[in-house]
Amino acid sequence: MGTLILKGNIIHTPQKDKFECHENAYLISKDNSIVGIFDSLPEEYKNEYVYDYGNKLIIPGLSDLHVHASQYVYCGLGIDLQLMDWLGTYAFPTECKYSDLDYAKVYYEAFAESLAKNGTTRAVVFATKHVEGTELLMDILEKHKIAAYVGKVNMDMFCPDYICEDTKQSIADTERWLKDTIGKYKMVQPAITPRFIPTCSSEVLKAMGELAKKYDLHIHTHSTEDIGEIEISLGRYKDFPSDGHVYDSFNLLTDKTVLAHFIFPTKEEMELIRDRGVTIAHCPQSNGNVRAGVPPIRQLMNMGVKVGLGSDIAGGYSVSIFRAMADAEYLSKIRWMETGKEDTYLSVPEAFFLGTKGGGSYFGKVGSFEEGYEMDAVIIDDSNLGTHLDNFSLEQRIERVIHMADDRNVVGRFVMGEKA
Amino acid sequence: MGTLILKGNIIHTPQKDKFECHENAYLISKDNSIVGIFDSLPEEYKNEYVYDYGNKLIIPGLSDLHVHASQYVYCGLGIDLQLMDWLGTYAFPTECKYSDLDYAKVYYEAFAESLAKNGTTRAVVFATKHVEGTELLMDILEKHKIAAYVGKVNMDMFCPDYICEDTKQSIADTERWLKDTIGKYKMVQPAITPRFIPTCSSEVLKAMGELAKKYDLHIHTHSTEDIGEIEISLGRYKDFPSDGHVYDSFNLLTDKTVLAHFIFPTKEEMELIRDRGVTIAHCPQSNGNVRAGVPPIRQLMNMGVKVGLGSDIAGGYSVSIFRAMADAEYLSKIRWMETGKEDTYLSVPEAFFLGTKGGGSYFGKVGSFEEGYEMDAVIIDDSNLGTHLDNFSLEQRIERVIHMADDRNVVGRFVMGEKA
Repeated sequence: MGTLILKGNIIHTPQKDKFECHENAYLISKDNSIVGIFDSLPEEYKNEYVYDYGNKLIIPGLSDLHVHASQYVYCGLGIDLQLMDWLGTYAFPTECKYSDLDYAKVYYEAFAESLAKNGTTRAVVFATKHVEGTELLMDILEKHKIAAYVGKVNMDMFCPDYICEDTKQSIADTERWLKDTIGKYKMVQPAITPRFIPTCSSEVLKAMGELAKKYDLHIHTHSTEDIGEIEISLGRYKDFPSDGHVYDSFNLLTDKTVLAHFIFPTKEEMELIRDRGVTIAHCPQSNGNVRAGVPPIRQLMNMGVKVGLGSDIAGGYSVSIFRAMADAEYLSKIRWMETGKEDTYLSVPEAFFLGTKGGGSYFGKVGSFEEGYEMDAVIIDDSNLGTHLDNFSLEQRIERVIHMADDRNVVGRFVMGEKA
Repeated sequence: MGTLILKGNIIHTPQKDKFECHENAYLISKDNSIVGIFDSLPEEYKNEYVYDYGNKLIIPGLSDLHVHASQYVYCGLGIDLQLMDWLGTYAFPTECKYSDLDYAKVYYEAFAESLAKNGTTRAVVFATKHVEGTELLMDILEKHKIAAYVGKVNMDMFCPDYICEDTKQSIADTERWLKDTIGKYKMVQPAITPRFIPTCSSEVLKAMGELAKKYDLHIHTHSTEDIGEIEISLGRYKDFPSDGHVYDSFNLLTDKTVLAHFIFPTKEEMELIRDRGVTIAHCPQSNGNVRAGVPPIRQLMNMGVKVGLGSDIAGGYSVSIFRAMADAEYLSKIRWMETGKEDTYLSVPEAFFLGTKGGGSYFGKVGSFEEGYEMDAVIIDDSNLGTHLDNFSLEQRIERVIHMADDRNVVGRFVMGEKA
């Protein structure tokens, strides 16, 4: 890897409420560790190659903390179906098809390409229950340089027979898959991924907690997404006050856990996940699409809970983390109105922070250009957004990118110190 | 104009809750009046030229019922500012610049191009207070084949001195502009456009009502957008129960009126505007961005009020009416949750209807392919949306277009029977 030098207009959010901008500056890393940002090229680097991006923007890599790779094929569909109809019409029948590796290859390739094109450098990904399909997805993500935690899904109850796993098989398959994939890739790692409480028996949840501990693994699941879902969970676990407490009883809440949604947490549940060091994947587009609810993101942030953004394909229909930033702002304004202006809405830098450093910290020192951070960067050409039309500041240019950019604006990507 | 024949996959919503789809069919118009949709080409047209769009989609033209042309230059900015800060930082200082026709030409051209690229065929447009700038905008819209009602804005109080009009001058300028522009264009017409109650004196509102009547004109303004705005309005008009009743007292509510927003109407106000035949421009992106509120669109539709969609650039940051459809769905789901599931959320065909036939009916028989409708059509190439990846139905293809398309997917436009 060695030294990497990028030149351009550098923008990041070391602090969540303020853009730090460096016009026409140098971003330098050594062996995937940021050295610093410099106004002029330090003498010792005079002979190194410089990627000169001129007037373009250089921002940290974007992190997608919750996405279903298998559902990419039908994103944008079933938007007005009820959740259970949507699962029955699209999610479950589609996931079934990933037993066919030829099918899986086509759609997982399309998924990975789409993430890369949109500037995502890190992702936490649901595959399906299929071991071979999941391993294929991991190969494909590695090839496309998406640094990812990927999960073979566990689901051994409360779902149609054609997709339901046998409990013992689910556990055995998971360990077989872990042995196949731990340490196999540079950028991709397995994550324990029970679908959610309703579709997982206690035996599976217990085994997943044990496997996570045994192999020191990341954990990815849904929590507290929907009133109906919570009722089902707590109908089964009558002595527990919340989804979070159920997961905790199976040792599934650690500082390597990401929980998607978290829309209706109790106060005790919020404190519990904060104390466990859990990260929340906030998926604003999906929360509205599936009519789940409006999560208390400001309260979580104020309590010191770690929060990042998720596209939640295909509950969400856009893989773009810029779009997730904009949607997070929008939904936070709804929350602001709903709470009588108590939960203040997200500022633009805060939304950007959630999609970069906020989500990135789930992966370690990722999502910022501070010293010692990994070298994940995205190059943005915003010239088609009309910035030639007026003299916008860098703060204004990144604000327009967040709200108006698409994959055409993403013209370069660096992941873990490698050019992608 | 004569005969126009388009061949392809034809989709429209004659009824608001259902897509009507015709695979590989012919859409025929004569002198800008739709003759019909045919599975095969009728004998009498055998010698006519056919625009053959193969597997592409042919949909009605998109209507934007509320957009500020002068604000296009800064859309995507100030998203987290308070409304008054936003007006003071961006809206008013920018609008001032349109006294300079060189400046106006650059930004109005960019605005019109953007509308055309995104498939908008009809628009109801705020210009600024400047007569010459407004006429230039009308020239430019005519050139780009955007059929539009355009307004020179009236604002003679409650705004900064540098942008405020003298009352008599405001009225005189308006009549001068009307005399210049009535009947001048094929596609573009002037509309009476008082900014909103707070910035218009009673004298101006009275004169605008009289001018609208004298010249039989369309009327465009904001109403009932914000709690603060309503307080200002009704603080001045203490005997009136609502914004709507104030406008009505000046004869500004007619079947040629479009009111933007309408977020907090009283029941009586809703009945009043329905009885007057007023159209509501629903601007879902803007309503969230500026934290105005969540309007009762379902109630308005159920009462028989005419409703279409508006981008409200730059309260909204996207000119795409597809995006407005998706945002309308999303916001309607928030409303559904807020009202305890009483106000049912929009179905996908209903969202499409609002952006085509719903908004189009403000312009007459526009926005559908029924017999006798005007020939406004948009050609959509959705091949980059992954429709090659699976065998989607036409209903599924248009659903994906609504949620995932951008200007790349708009590959042709017909307006009032002319190829644009």
